[in-house]
Amino acid sequence: MLHNELTKRLNIQYPIIQAPMAGGITTSKLVAEVSSAGGLGMIGAGYLTPAQTKEQIKEIKQLTSKPFGINLFVPNEFHITEDAVKSADQLLHSIREQLNVEPADSFDIPEFNTIFESFMEQVKVVIEEKVPICSFTFGVPSKEVIAKLKQHNITLIGTATTVREAVENEKLGMDMVVVQGSEAGGHRGNFIDEHQESLVGLMSLIPQAVDHVSIPVIAAGGIMDGRGLMASLCLGAQGVQMGTAFLTCVESGAHKVHKEAILKGAEDQVTFTRAFSGKWARGIKNKFILDMQEHELLVPDFPVQNLLTQVIRKAGSEQNNQDFMSLWSGQSPRLAKNQTVERLMKDMITEVQKINITVS
Amino acid sequence: MLHNELTKRLNIQYPIIQAPMAGGITTSKLVAEVSSAGGLGMIGAGYLTPAQTKEQIKEIKQLTSKPFGINLFVPNEFHITEDAVKSADQLLHSIREQLNVEPADSFDIPEFNTIFESFMEQVKVVIEEKVPICSFTFGVPSKEVIAKLKQHNITLIGTATTVREAVENEKLGMDMVVVQGSEAGGHRGNFIDEHQESLVGLMSLIPQAVDHVSIPVIAAGGIMDGRGLMASLCLGAQGVQMGTAFLTCVESGAHKVHKEAILKGAEDQVTFTRAFSGKWARGIKNKFILDMQEHELLVPDFPVQNLLTQVIRKAGSEQNNQDFMSLWSGQSPRLAKNQTVERLMKDMITEVQKINITVS
Repeated sequence: MLHNELTKRLNIQYPIIQAPMAGGITTSKLVAEVSSAGGLGMIGAGYLTPAQTKEQIKEIKQLTSKPFGINLFVPNEFHITEDAVKSADQLLHSIREQLNVEPADSFDIPEFNTIFESFMEQVKVVIEEKVPICSFTFGVPSKEVIAKLKQHNITLIGTATTVREAVENEKLGMDMVVVQGSEAGGHRGNFIDEHQESLVGLMSLIPQAVDHVSIPVIAAGGIMDGRGLMASLCLGAQGVQMGTAFLTCVESGAHKVHKEAILKGAEDQVTFTRAFSGKWARGIKNKFILDMQEHELLVPDFPVQNLLTQVIRKAGSEQNNQDFMSLWSGQSPRLAKNQTVERLMKDMITEVQKINITVS
Repeated sequence: MLHNELTKRLNIQYPIIQAPMAGGITTSKLVAEVSSAGGLGMIGAGYLTPAQTKEQIKEIKQLTSKPFGINLFVPNEFHITEDAVKSADQLLHSIREQLNVEPADSFDIPEFNTIFESFMEQVKVVIEEKVPICSFTFGVPSKEVIAKLKQHNITLIGTATTVREAVENEKLGMDMVVVQGSEAGGHRGNFIDEHQESLVGLMSLIPQAVDHVSIPVIAAGGIMDGRGLMASLCLGAQGVQMGTAFLTCVESGAHKVHKEAILKGAEDQVTFTRAFSGKWARGIKNKFILDMQEHELLVPDFPVQNLLTQVIRKAGSEQNNQDFMSLWSGQSPRLAKNQTVERLMKDMITEVQKINITVS
């Protein structure tokens, strides 16, 4: 077995965490299957309302008796004027035309306070439902939130993209930290370092982070199989968090067009864009990304741009049109398979057992 | 021992290759020490004349009886007008002023033919001197060159940054291929894929490359110690090539200011620039990189820009001024140590023996 401080603390069999991908990918079935197979299933609750959050937690409890976790987006302040929203909306006009969708009649700029209240409600739900593990992206929550969750013996996992961010996570009370390498798909979790500075490959990031924190480090980015798990452990991580590998699984709720794009994809087709959400994220290059490239530095910050592109992503999905969907993927699409969670987990463990590097 | 196809073929004890860093870093002493310690020392001959190349090979033979290798830059065609050179030179004017250096009275645009002839002379030297291993960067040499070297039983190692480039190396007859992860310091070796597309982290690049070629894969980028070696082997590589780790060694010819900048550096201070040479390269951020950032896409291609900035880099070195030196480094400066090659190699092997991940 691969027993260590992390598996003990999380009360799981294998140090394999399913990345909490938001936006409908982490179905209750996916989360429960991962946990039942000995890993840690995680709800990506970033876009869920508190009520939906509660509902999904209850649903998963019906499907597995094993521990699972949840990830929340730490709300970030943003500043936006009505004019800026209008011009950002204009930029999307020709794309909406290509998809035959109407712009929203009016667009309410979301209020930070509303988002923050919703986050606090989610925290309440996590406590009420006694979810044993709660992870965070886009920053570290306030002292008060951390203290409250710790009072209820909830294990807290932060996200870092650099050594400095990992150290900050430990200082602020996180029990473990996910280090997100530049290989990782989806949104970047950088919250101190700028985007470019925060793109550190795992071969560099894991050992440097491990040397500077004493909490367990979890590696994330491009890890798809037993090879990646073993490599991460050699570098000093205590576990891995895998997104893309679980995204293409049968049980994931990702759109079939999204799954197919990854299964046919290659590492040199995966790029960064800010245009879908206002936050840098890695995905497979498509028409939307290319068309928006010249504007991407100008679009409003997350979550405003994300709301503006919602109708486009929705229409893209409904029309099975991959040109206008956010096809998040890490840098290892060639290693993706369409398989069950059980198969993925079993093959990983078998593969790990076969890796035998004799040193004498 | 870490025996495999690669160590057998290269006739070395450990699958550790010292990266052939050009520009005076790979002193004869460094190369010989690495080979004597059981790894593979490599001459970075990219900027050497054929005569200098011959001289260094002879010198190393006096220092070690163990095999060592050499790296050559494959010449790339470039197109440049006198006007373009003039305006590129203008951009460097204020920087020369800061360093109190005069511009060259006249500047001869280098001719591709001259560069190519020098390369062919270097190939001749490699054959005459019976250097057993020859590696290439910036592309794959012609069929004729490959055939000639193979006739003399010289083992050929290519460089790739993506799966496609690795496959191309195998197809064109390379015996092994170095996969250069986005973590790597110094110049990028991409020759098919564009810069952005070729930035793949080793956690993704190694297993995907290994799955698509049958020649041995050597991992390069951010690897500094036994942890990185073991991780690379787990991912399927047969060996590692390490640059920064050897650059800060006592025996390396790197400028002391360069060594100190790395020893004090952090992973989020290492960035890409085109401004020093006209080719993308990774190094520690300094005044020159920041000042030139807005122009870097406009500067002439390698090797023209490299020649234009020569006087600046030289003055920077002479004045111990790190603001104007090319401080190439991979993404793991926090793992760098100022130590002897022997110490580095011994510690790596000891560390590897200590990594013990029990799987049952």
